Amino acid sequence: MSWDQVWIDVNVASMDPAVSAPYGAIVDAAMAVKDGKIAWVGPRAELPEFDVMSTPLYRGKGGWITPGLIDAHTHLIFAGNRANEFEKRLQGATYEEIARSGGGIISTVNACREASEADLFELGRKRLNALAKEGVTTVEIKSGYGLDTETELKILRVARELGKHHHVDVKTTFLGAHAIPPEYKDDVEGYVDLVINEMLPAVLAEDLADAVDVFCENIAFSVEQTERVLTAAKNAGLDIKLHAEQLSNLGGSAMAAKLGAKSVDHIEYLDEAGVIALSKSGTCATLLPGAFYFLRETQMPPIDLLRKHKVPMVLASDYNPGSSPLCSSLLMLNMGCTLFRLTPEEALQGVTANAAKALGIEDRVGVLAAGMQADFCLWDITTPAELSYSYGAGTCIEVVKNGHLVHQ
Amino acid sequence: MSWDQVWIDVNVASMDPAVSAPYGAIVDAAMAVKDGKIAWVGPRAELPEFDVMSTPLYRGKGGWITPGLIDAHTHLIFAGNRANEFEKRLQGATYEEIARSGGGIISTVNACREASEADLFELGRKRLNALAKEGVTTVEIKSGYGLDTETELKILRVARELGKHHHVDVKTTFLGAHAIPPEYKDDVEGYVDLVINEMLPAVLAEDLADAVDVFCENIAFSVEQTERVLTAAKNAGLDIKLHAEQLSNLGGSAMAAKLGAKSVDHIEYLDEAGVIALSKSGTCATLLPGAFYFLRETQMPPIDLLRKHKVPMVLASDYNPGSSPLCSSLLMLNMGCTLFRLTPEEALQGVTANAAKALGIEDRVGVLAAGMQADFCLWDITTPAELSYSYGAGTCIEVVKNGHLVHQ
Ligand SMILES: [Zn+2]
Ligand SMILES: [Zn+2]
Repeated sequence: MSWDQVWIDVNVASMDPAVSAPYGAIVDAAMAVKDGKIAWVGPRAELPEFDVMSTPLYRGKGGWITPGLIDAHTHLIFAGNRANEFEKRLQGATYEEIARSGGGIISTVNACREASEADLFELGRKRLNALAKEGVTTVEIKSGYGLDTETELKILRVARELGKHHHVDVKTTFLGAHAIPPEYKDDVEGYVDLVINEMLPAVLAEDLADAVDVFCENIAFSVEQTERVLTAAKNAGLDIKLHAEQLSNLGGSAMAAKLGAKSVDHIEYLDEAGVIALSKSGTCATLLPGAFYFLRETQMPPIDLLRKHKVPMVLASDYNPGSSPLCSSLLMLNMGCTLFRLTPEEALQGVTANAAKALGIEDRVGVLAAGMQADFCLWDITTPAELSYSYGAGTCIEVVKNGHLVHQ
Repeated sequence: MSWDQVWIDVNVASMDPAVSAPYGAIVDAAMAVKDGKIAWVGPRAELPEFDVMSTPLYRGKGGWITPGLIDAHTHLIFAGNRANEFEKRLQGATYEEIARSGGGIISTVNACREASEADLFELGRKRLNALAKEGVTTVEIKSGYGLDTETELKILRVARELGKHHHVDVKTTFLGAHAIPPEYKDDVEGYVDLVINEMLPAVLAEDLADAVDVFCENIAFSVEQTERVLTAAKNAGLDIKLHAEQLSNLGGSAMAAKLGAKSVDHIEYLDEAGVIALSKSGTCATLLPGAFYFLRETQMPPIDLLRKHKVPMVLASDYNPGSSPLCSSLLMLNMGCTLFRLTPEEALQGVTANAAKALGIEDRVGVLAAGMQADFCLWDITTPAELSYSYGAGTCIEVVKNGHLVHQ
């Protein structure tokens, strides 16, 4: 065999359901990479012969290799920050006082409208670096802090540029219907029209988005308005997804499932009928424990129902300045287990194989098997559960992206 | 003036109560270092003349300088890990089943008894590196996973060695009375005698500890037993501190305060009488939100009472394999605010000025003022509140320890 690199002295958590052990685990494994793809993975004892003189050999010191992590729900391009608002609230200010003093999402929107593309790129780059250091190799980034055509396009352009200039792959999502901008507060239908008739065509014209998302909630867009946006997106050939059932059970998830959404996200208030709808459509349930933690929510997502109906569960950071200022996918593994009682295996599936499904890229990434992209991490851990159990001890030793060792 | 280095283009959160602004903040500041100490800090406009040709000048790009972080309560030297136990619990195993299968603290004790000093050193070094990267310059490390004389000494020796070989300063605490070892389960008094009459003298003989700690709780040591250990420690000239009022209000804190304890730690169940006792003795209250989070506790520590009676609040990671496997001081800032509703200023005091008090080193570190040790961090933030508000975006740019830039 002629390979570009071979890894030994490792265990592999392949996350491949075809490998029957938990985590798709292969203890004392070997893995070979060729042309940026996994060429072979299996027990070391079965490793085919290869040219040991000409093939770089990497030794994993008994650690574990997992697929590169995928953060399938972030809002990581934004300007400004809401630290002052956070501080005021802890000093006793009410939400109303904060809103009156210019806080809340509108402060982020204003900062994004004012920021240059170069500024946004630099802010996004730093955050992407932080995620990458923890083992993230693919990230989804949403717009939604522009709420006007120009700024929505600007954010998506920056996200696309980041994907071109950073080793992390970027999937972009147009979230024009994230909130109702002040200019349209008495004309929500008018804003929905703008999203569908002006923003979406402009996004399509520049090929800026892989998917479209909407915040469906009684404080944002109704199920009907959401359906209009998602239908337009679907007709344009884009993937669709949804922020839904975070604060109440409106039925947005079931509607989106019927339209074939890739994922519905948050879903703390989703009921069994909604879960069954996801199950039928193969829609993923994206759980966002960072927002649950930061907002001190108490309504748990329906984990047992999701298990019962075999809905793929995804874990994502939801990194954003308002409700989840936590720029870490690894921390979400711990929070998913600690707060939502996921098992460590479910948590790891949620940032690998299932996250890939939520982004429609499960044919390329998320599991380690022959033919898949060589995106993987080597961890200084003794069991895959350690990734969820412990946080912060700096266990990510190496990251390989498209077969290349990433130095960071 | 002849200085070793000068910092400009920075703001300084000095945490010095003598500087009247919140955070002891000096906007557009300058800071000069000489012989490992702060030589001058103040508004840049008032910076005395110095030899610009011969003095290295560092520009902080408008970021903020804070004192180096102090993690005043950790158990970071341990072998083994409890990931399997974590996983089993999430798969539905009861605590009893886990205990029967060798889980719980005793699994850590067994692993520590078997580990060599070299193994423990390497494990501790990695964890200390992780804390250091986030800006920690002083850490406290407890024993307590030996529960026999040989292993307690081994852990403390490793902690002392770490302090000698790492740029982070290490304060050591002897916590022989952490749990009742299986050998003494029917003779707790006998174990307390062992701690006092054999372990403590051995610790003193090798000068291995700066302080002594006890876990005072109905599942561990009684107030009376705790008092015996602390009194012996005090008579030997060591600082004393306590794990207390975590699960019930036994009165250990008030007893320890009377003995002049530097801190009482956890204290979720502390009542107002206990808080008043701390206030009278100048004892710090060390809050451990990581354990609160990980154990999914609901009883909040008495923050308002601590404020009312002006007890210095400390925030620490409690990093340990059983109840707080979170190796991050920065995350504790966010958890202290999010879970315990501290203000960001209180949180930052808790890992700087007040943490220094809890370790009895407030004459040297914890605030940035002339004459103090030059231990500080430069952060890529626009307001000190950002350190508590956001987590993970990698904002620690530089760490200076004893006047030396740390490359890590
Ligand atoms: Zn979101
Ligand atoms: Zn502790």
